[in-house]
Amino acid sequence: MFETLEVGRRLKRSEYNDLQLPLRQKLLEAQFELAQQDYPVIIVVAGLDGAGKGTLVHRLNEWMDPRGIETNTYWEHSDEEESRPYFWRFWRSLPPRGKIGIFLGSWYTRPAQAAVDDQMSREEFAVACQQIESFERMLHDDGALVIKLWLHVSEEVQRAQLEGKAPRSQQNPRVSDRPYELHGNYAKTLEASEKLILGTDSSHSRWHLIEAQDRYYRDITAGEIIAEAMQAHKPRNQPLPAGPSDADDIAVTGRQPTVLDGVDLTKSMEKDKYKKKLAAYQDKLQDLSWKAYRQRRSVVAVFEGWDAAGKGSAIRRVTGAIDPRLYKLVQVGAPTDEENAQHYLWRFWRQLQRDGRATFFDRSWYGRVLVERVEQFASPAEWQRAYSEINQFERQLVAHGCIVLKFWIHISKDEQMARFKTRAQEPHKRHKITDEDWRNREKWHDYELAVDQMVSHTSTQHAPWTLVAGNDKPWARIQILKTFCKTMSAALDKEK
Amino acid sequence: MFETLEVGRRLKRSEYNDLQLPLRQKLLEAQFELAQQDYPVIIVVAGLDGAGKGTLVHRLNEWMDPRGIETNTYWEHSDEEESRPYFWRFWRSLPPRGKIGIFLGSWYTRPAQAAVDDQMSREEFAVACQQIESFERMLHDDGALVIKLWLHVSEEVQRAQLEGKAPRSQQNPRVSDRPYELHGNYAKTLEASEKLILGTDSSHSRWHLIEAQDRYYRDITAGEIIAEAMQAHKPRNQPLPAGPSDADDIAVTGRQPTVLDGVDLTKSMEKDKYKKKLAAYQDKLQDLSWKAYRQRRSVVAVFEGWDAAGKGSAIRRVTGAIDPRLYKLVQVGAPTDEENAQHYLWRFWRQLQRDGRATFFDRSWYGRVLVERVEQFASPAEWQRAYSEINQFERQLVAHGCIVLKFWIHISKDEQMARFKTRAQEPHKRHKITDEDWRNREKWHDYELAVDQMVSHTSTQHAPWTLVAGNDKPWARIQILKTFCKTMSAALDKEK
Repeated sequence: MFETLEVGRRLKRSEYNDLQLPLRQKLLEAQFELAQQDYPVIIVVAGLDGAGKGTLVHRLNEWMDPRGIETNTYWEHSDEEESRPYFWRFWRSLPPRGKIGIFLGSWYTRPAQAAVDDQMSREEFAVACQQIESFERMLHDDGALVIKLWLHVSEEVQRAQLEGKAPRSQQNPRVSDRPYELHGNYAKTLEASEKLILGTDSSHSRWHLIEAQDRYYRDITAGEIIAEAMQAHKPRNQPLPAGPSDADDIAVTGRQPTVLDGVDLTKSMEKDKYKKKLAAYQDKLQDLSWKAYRQRRSVVAVFEGWDAAGKGSAIRRVTGAIDPRLYKLVQVGAPTDEENAQHYLWRFWRQLQRDGRATFFDRSWYGRVLVERVEQFASPAEWQRAYSEINQFERQLVAHGCIVLKFWIHISKDEQMARFKTRAQEPHKRHKITDEDWRNREKWHDYELAVDQMVSHTSTQHAPWTLVAGNDKPWARIQILKTFCKTMSAALDKEK
Repeated sequence: MFETLEVGRRLKRSEYNDLQLPLRQKLLEAQFELAQQDYPVIIVVAGLDGAGKGTLVHRLNEWMDPRGIETNTYWEHSDEEESRPYFWRFWRSLPPRGKIGIFLGSWYTRPAQAAVDDQMSREEFAVACQQIESFERMLHDDGALVIKLWLHVSEEVQRAQLEGKAPRSQQNPRVSDRPYELHGNYAKTLEASEKLILGTDSSHSRWHLIEAQDRYYRDITAGEIIAEAMQAHKPRNQPLPAGPSDADDIAVTGRQPTVLDGVDLTKSMEKDKYKKKLAAYQDKLQDLSWKAYRQRRSVVAVFEGWDAAGKGSAIRRVTGAIDPRLYKLVQVGAPTDEENAQHYLWRFWRQLQRDGRATFFDRSWYGRVLVERVEQFASPAEWQRAYSEINQFERQLVAHGCIVLKFWIHISKDEQMARFKTRAQEPHKRHKITDEDWRNREKWHDYELAVDQMVSHTSTQHAPWTLVAGNDKPWARIQILKTFCKTMSAALDKEK
């Protein structure tokens, strides 16, 4: 693979000077065009040590308008990063729409390093490649342009660079006094790199391999690749072909049972029994939350349900059992503009708490396949691909050791009406009922279908949905607390 | 001080039930009123261990609409927090305008703990109190309502709680198996608490002391204090009395010399000499940046100057010498809405890099006393108090070990005109010149005055301004690089 990158491509200084000015202009034009667009550009600068990745990043910042670029480097990982799923650190520095994010060190760094150090099995490596592929495809599907550059140098050039023999070299070994760790690993690095490149080269996110020995050739080539990719980019957001699970498909067949019809809404619990059970489960949950803390296991819990289903009060029965230092409650409302300028999952990633802590979401990423679908805030293509995006997201949480719980609190349409009326009458509850609630009620059947498909697509072994019978609030709360205790008990003391 | 808090205030359960409903209503009304306002509410819940701080926080979340509240707990500090000035962690979780932030554990926790453990001298303790006072005054001046609650219990009640004898108690010792560390320290804790409360009780940010033995009395009292404070709050934003340094004062005396007149704009450097010096200083700066990294010293550098003064190209000469992993360049443009919903310094705090790294600001917090002053985006009261707010901010940076550099790149009005014309002609520079630049030019004299007063108020021993002669770009760049090298050399190897 790399033999074509040691053939001696080079530019004379005069050629470089001639090419530089029109290239800069092209890049600037592409950048100004981008500023008007609603997608970001993500540039991954990867390659061998000594190939001049850092210098290229400097050059790109020099050529383009730095006001539209953010350069992110990944190097020493903080404990805040290490105590969350691997991709959290990349999510938190993704560029907003209209801007460029340059990544020097990226999601490729760790698998590459691990492969060179023989610290990853063949299977783990395949999983890592697949995760990268999903991540980049998701960004691409959202409109992002992903440009990946790989800089290659021969073993001789690398050695000269790393040993400081190259002119005006700027290097890493200054971090410590130990001899540069990749010395002698050149062949192995190439081998791992080839596997990584092959495993992550896809039509929507191609690798560009660049011979990097000559800095003039390297910089001009990288610049041209970026300029052309930016000029050519048309964000794709076309509807996927509608599958058998598409809403229209079901709608034409009339009112069919959904998974919600299986929830027994007649269940209830008497006050005395409720109080006893509440106290017992809260005590247990308190213990379990400290145990999870000690075992550095985090919990991510999602609460969804009909308006007035009692999400808030159910959540309070859960949080009431847990030390405030051990959890964060996230109320999901309208996104801020920083959130709107990102992939829709970004605002949820940014809320994830550290290992040992719980994050509770009052409404969640499932809004994408519920309200955004029903209200047509998301296109069919967007909400349909959201199922797999969400599954990927939750799989990453679970793989990191999170315990994922998801509740849909179900009530009947009549029960909802009764609660709306009560709310309208009680002064301290009046704020809870809005015009929007009445409007949502009219779309009851659309929501039923959306919930049915949501459960069908996203209730997985590692992150199953719990459908809660909510007509009787005590019953619902105990069911939720019980599920918490059961799930956490089963998960703790096990291997991550 | 605390003897009045052990007199046996209590409520019967029936009284509590009667009082709870109207109180909730009052709190909710205050909260909805707040949502329309452009200031945040900051509630500090402090007090003795075993006094029920956590339970009170649960109660407040239950009583109010959790959609408008964010609860922040400070406990185990992350390395991202520890490697930045102490207040960074609080800045990053301040509530936006219209919302409530509850702080369980706060800026009081560390000084209180240190005082109990005898790890803080009397002088350090005084400095800590003063920092807290400045922080809260700044928030208050920006409109925020700060409510501070101190929960007190007697030694007997504390012991019963901590030893788990109290009914339904929820405690900390589960974190570890060691006996609760405050045992036996009750008297000492009271002593330190009293000092801390006295040192930070001010008219704009009062402490409310609450007898907390009876949970009914505690919760109702805390709720009433919050409801009343929220109802009564009128954010103050009145102009300060204009001091002798006010702009008007100088304007009436006609065109007087300013500090900028002392900059010798005839300075220049020949190309050959420039190239040699550039290479030498960049090499030196490269070494120094690694040295700073090894010594865990961070650098914060501010670049300000006239439009077309050459800030961008000067910054590139600095960053060009530094490994991209060791710095972050922050381009300060229009604030996002998340930034607009916070104190104006928030957007700069959030950018600070970790120990050992540099943060470069292309434009900065000085916008408050430059463009925001001249364009009247900030009221006189706002930009006048900004001087001391900025000094406080920079003092915290320096106290933490940051090396702070500030550059104003000065050019003559004629030189600016010449550069505007060139920019308009060169295609790859055309984007740099906007209508706004021409408008700013008309206000040259207003900016001169603003710069003069900025330097006068904020050029301090620990964070001095460097006025750079910018008519000749090579000269300016070398002057900046030289200042970097000199300042960093002097600061490194010294005690933080």
